[in-house]
Parts: sequence; structure tokens; C-alpha cells
Amino acid sequence: MPVGMLTQTSIRCWASGVPIYCRTPWCRVPKLSLSMSLQKHSPHSFLPLEALLDKFGGVTVHLPQELPTAHEGAFQSWLQESIKQWKAEGRAAVWMHIPILQSRFIAVAAAEGFTFHHAELDTSTLTLWLREGQSRLPGFATHQVGVAGAVLDVDTGKVLVVQDRNKATNAWKFPGGLSEPGEDIGNTAIREVFEETGIRSEFKSLLSIRQQHKHPGAFGKSDMYLICRLKPLTFSISFCPQECLKCEWMDLEKLAQMKDTTPITSRVANLLLYGFREGFEKIDLPMREFPAVYTGLFYKLYHRELPRTYQNGTGL
Amino acid sequence: MPVGMLTQTSIRCWASGVPIYCRTPWCRVPKLSLSMSLQKHSPHSFLPLEALLDKFGGVTVHLPQELPTAHEGAFQSWLQESIKQWKAEGRAAVWMHIPILQSRFIAVAAAEGFTFHHAELDTSTLTLWLREGQSRLPGFATHQVGVAGAVLDVDTGKVLVVQDRNKATNAWKFPGGLSEPGEDIGNTAIREVFEETGIRSEFKSLLSIRQQHKHPGAFGKSDMYLICRLKPLTFSISFCPQECLKCEWMDLEKLAQMKDTTPITSRVANLLLYGFREGFEKIDLPMREFPAVYTGLFYKLYHRELPRTYQNGTGL
Repeated sequence: MPVGMLTQTSIRCWASGVPIYCRTPWCRVPKLSLSMSLQKHSPHSFLPLEALLDKFGGVTVHLPQELPTAHEGAFQSWLQESIKQWKAEGRAAVWMHIPILQSRFIAVAAAEGFTFHHAELDTSTLTLWLREGQSRLPGFATHQVGVAGAVLDVDTGKVLVVQDRNKATNAWKFPGGLSEPGEDIGNTAIREVFEETGIRSEFKSLLSIRQQHKHPGAFGKSDMYLICRLKPLTFSISFCPQECLKCEWMDLEKLAQMKDTTPITSRVANLLLYGFREGFEKIDLPMREFPAVYTGLFYKLYHRELPRTYQNGTGL
Repeated sequence: MPVGMLTQTSIRCWASGVPIYCRTPWCRVPKLSLSMSLQKHSPHSFLPLEALLDKFGGVTVHLPQELPTAHEGAFQSWLQESIKQWKAEGRAAVWMHIPILQSRFIAVAAAEGFTFHHAELDTSTLTLWLREGQSRLPGFATHQVGVAGAVLDVDTGKVLVVQDRNKATNAWKFPGGLSEPGEDIGNTAIREVFEETGIRSEFKSLLSIRQQHKHPGAFGKSDMYLICRLKPLTFSISFCPQECLKCEWMDLEKLAQMKDTTPITSRVANLLLYGFREGFEKIDLPMREFPAVYTGLFYKLYHRELPRTYQNGTGL
């Protein structure tokens, strides 16, 4: 519904919206009240807290790294007073960024209704929805991304497979693992294949995408698992004994018929066999890179091959 | 390399590995020291902290919801002593789960080298790598997932497009937004299309996958953006004015040639035109559902159509 919709817009915009300094008088009051009460407990003077207003009606507060002897009581008074003010002003929500060494203030915020939005390394971000109904704030990342590489030697019809050491069942599968932050799908496949098997390879295409929720290895989040078709550049296996029980070049036909494997490996092995016999253009999702609307950024796009005649917008 | 490899195994297994109670005597000592020092400050008795050992050599500690008057000093002594012990025992890492109301202990842990792994709602999880070199612990979710719906009316050759209200440039695009936690790709597309435009639709296929890093709307994380082909079930537009500036059924050919759009919309419009004219089997990634290896779970798999003859493992 319309209501829900605003959420979805917000989702992408909340974080990208450049905050605007809030010039309304109510910002000053809590600022002063906190700085004064802090100064009572600290000889140092320090920058008073500023409440930044974003274009979605949200308020952002950054706790500084240094709040020498500020105590929770002073923070609680300021927060309670500020929340009253923000509600009176019709603000939608509060984002509060807290350095890990200032975490004693988290419980104070929680007592006022704040919850964790996310936390990473040395900072946590808490949020409080100020309006009626449930929060419309965007959530944090929901998926981990794993990538496997189906490395096929077209001269021999053999594909590179491994058996994990740390799995209950020793099913044959394609080597793979989780993406590092900021790593492209194809690069994850190439890195994982090399780390597990010692084989160097190059990206040819994307073959399949799997989405799975409540993944046991994803801290309760969802898992996106992609399999890429790779071309081997080297052939001599030197697999990682800590990770792999076995590693070999296996006849693709054998893998396609094998029972001793996972459903997805079997399915993609058959897809690969189809492409190997009748042309990879029947199974590939080629990749193209495009400039993003955000200056300087690029993205990679995967879809079925688009004939040249359809690339000029006419199809002629 | 092999070293790196272990990491990758760990990544999927850390969280899924069922913790085993640690029976070694060194666990008892810190437990007692903490419980005693806590009881000094609290009349209540409570369950002393237990260090759980996982099969990857990591230790997990859950701080209880109730630690009435336990002070940071007692926790710090226990933690320092425990870390010494864990290192002496050759443990790999520590996972510490802290209820939000106990967050005063986070700064204490941070002073001993802990950092945030993640946090959500009312709990934060901190980690400390105990061994040489950089941490091999698995990271948290790295991607948000956005889905758009290309709703094509095959009787008129018109496709449903919108202009966002909250964007600087008013480019025509397919309606879409971020996946809710645990929501399948196709369901996100259907929900988003309905919320933005009032049009009901059904999932036909996946058309494209885009991966983009450092996405401004993803709190510094990566963004996976998928476009699905949907079939309209209703045709009367009632768009969300808070989200959309405009919404209309536009000739697909016009959209494919239009300059006033985003590169990805233009690209997928041409792909859709190709499928509309020459057969959707040329552009579709159909979906199949499979049982996961984890009991009771299912996943959805998307790839090029696999001929029946290749579904029996023979290709014959």
C-alpha cells in the first residue's frame, strides 16, 4: 500500500540523503543541557551534541569519541528532553551513532526505546521510530553472498570438484565460498577455486542464482549462492587439506549422473553438460559493466545475451 | 591459499556448528570469579557465565539478561583472566553476545580488543581473534537485495513504469524496492509493484542480476538488484503519490528507445522487447524450488531452461 511504499523509497534514500544541520531552536536546548551537565562532571570543554535533520524527517546524533566523565544520568535527561522535542516537532525517527568505547550510553538509549539497527567494528547505530505505527526505517544488509566456480576443461570434458572436509556428508561439489566485502561475483569464484584447489581460472559467465532464507551459516540472515562458469588456466591440482577431503578433475557426464552429490551440484552439472554439448550460449548469463548513476561507481549486470540489433533500442 | 581456505570453510560453519559445553577446568575458574564478584554486589544468585566451545576452536559467551548490580570491574577481571586462559588453551576466537541492557560491558570488552561483529534489535555480538595474523572469522551479511518488476501486458505491448518522487532526476524506471527479511525475490517484485502502482501481478521469470558495491543506500554495504518479468493480473493504476511522481503503462518500444531513463532500465527494456517479439524463452531465467540439505528448508534456484532430456543426468 502507499504507506508501505514510502518505506521502500526511504530505504534507499535514508542513508544517501545528505544530512542538513538543524537550525530550529529546539536543537540548541538539549545540546546546551547536555554540554552543561557534562561539563559539571568534566573539566574539559567539548563539542556539544548536534542533532542533524535529514530530508526524510529523521534526526541523526553522533556521540563523540571523547566524553571523558559524562555520566549516564546527564545523557538520559538530555535524551528524554530531546525525544519530547523531536516528537513535538513531528520528527519521524532518530538515528544514533555510538562509538564502542561510549557503549555505556547504549543501555540508556535502550531504556528510552532505542534498538540496534546495526553495529560493525567500533561503532553501533541505534534507531528509535517516533511516529505512529511500526518503524518505516530501512533495514540493514539481509544477505550473505556465496559463489562457486564450475571450472570445465573443454578439451577433456572434465570439471573440477571437491569434497569438503568439514561436512557431515562427503558429497562432490564445485569449489566456492563467501564473497569478501566489495568483491565481485566472478572474482569470488576465481579466488575460492584457487584457494581450495590451487587451480587458476578466468570468468566466463554466470550460470545460476539460488536464494535461501534462514541459512544456518548466515547468522539468521538469507543466503544468495551463485555458480559461475570458469575456464581453467592451470590444471595441476594442489588442494587445501584443511578444507578439502578430496579434489579431482571428474568427467562432467559422471558428475551429471552421480547420486553422491547435492541437488544443486547435480542440476548445474546437467546444465553445464547441456552447454558443453550444444553450445555455452544456451546456458550462459554473460556479464556487462555499466557506469552507475552515482558518480565514479560502476556495476556489473548479468542477463541473457542481447542481440546487437536490440542494443540500439530498435530491435532492427 | 590453504590458509585463506580454512577461513572460507569456517565462514559457513562457524555459525552452524552446534556449540559443545566446555568441560575443561579453566572454564570453571573465571566462571566462579565472575559469579562471586557479582554476588558481592547483588543479593540475587544467578547462573555463572559459561564459555561454550565450538568445533572450530572458538569460545562463545552469552551475557545473561539479568546481571543486577554486577560492575564493570568484576567483568574486566574475569575477561582478562579468561582471555589468558583461552590463549593458553589455543582457542581461536571469542564470540560474546550481549543483551542491549547489559551494554555497559561492551566498552570493557572493547578495551580488551573486542569489536562489534553485528548487532540487531536487542542484542550485540562482539568478537576477539585470539590467534596470530588477521581474524578468520566469518563476516556478517554483506548485501542488501532490491527487486524490480517489469510488468508487461502482452496484449498491448505496454509495460508498467514509474518516476520516483524522491529522486533528483525523473527517469522512468520499473517499480521496485528492497526485499524484506526472508522474502523471496519474486514476492518482493510483486509486493513492490502493488505498493507503488496498485497493480496486481504474478511472477514469470528472473531477467537480470546487478551487483554494485559501496551503494549509497546500503549503509556502506553492497547491493544486489534483480529485475523480474511479471504478468499483470489487474490493469487500473492507483499509484502511491508519496513515492511516485508519475506512473503509466508505456509502449515497450518507446521505453526501449527512450533517453530519459537509467542505463539498466533501458538495457532490460530492450531485453524484454527481444523476448516479447521473439519469444520469452530467449530472455527468461525460470525458477525451480528444491529441498535444502538442511531439514525442512527449501530454496529457489534460477537458471536457463534445462531441456527435459538433460534432467535425467544423461542428456539423452
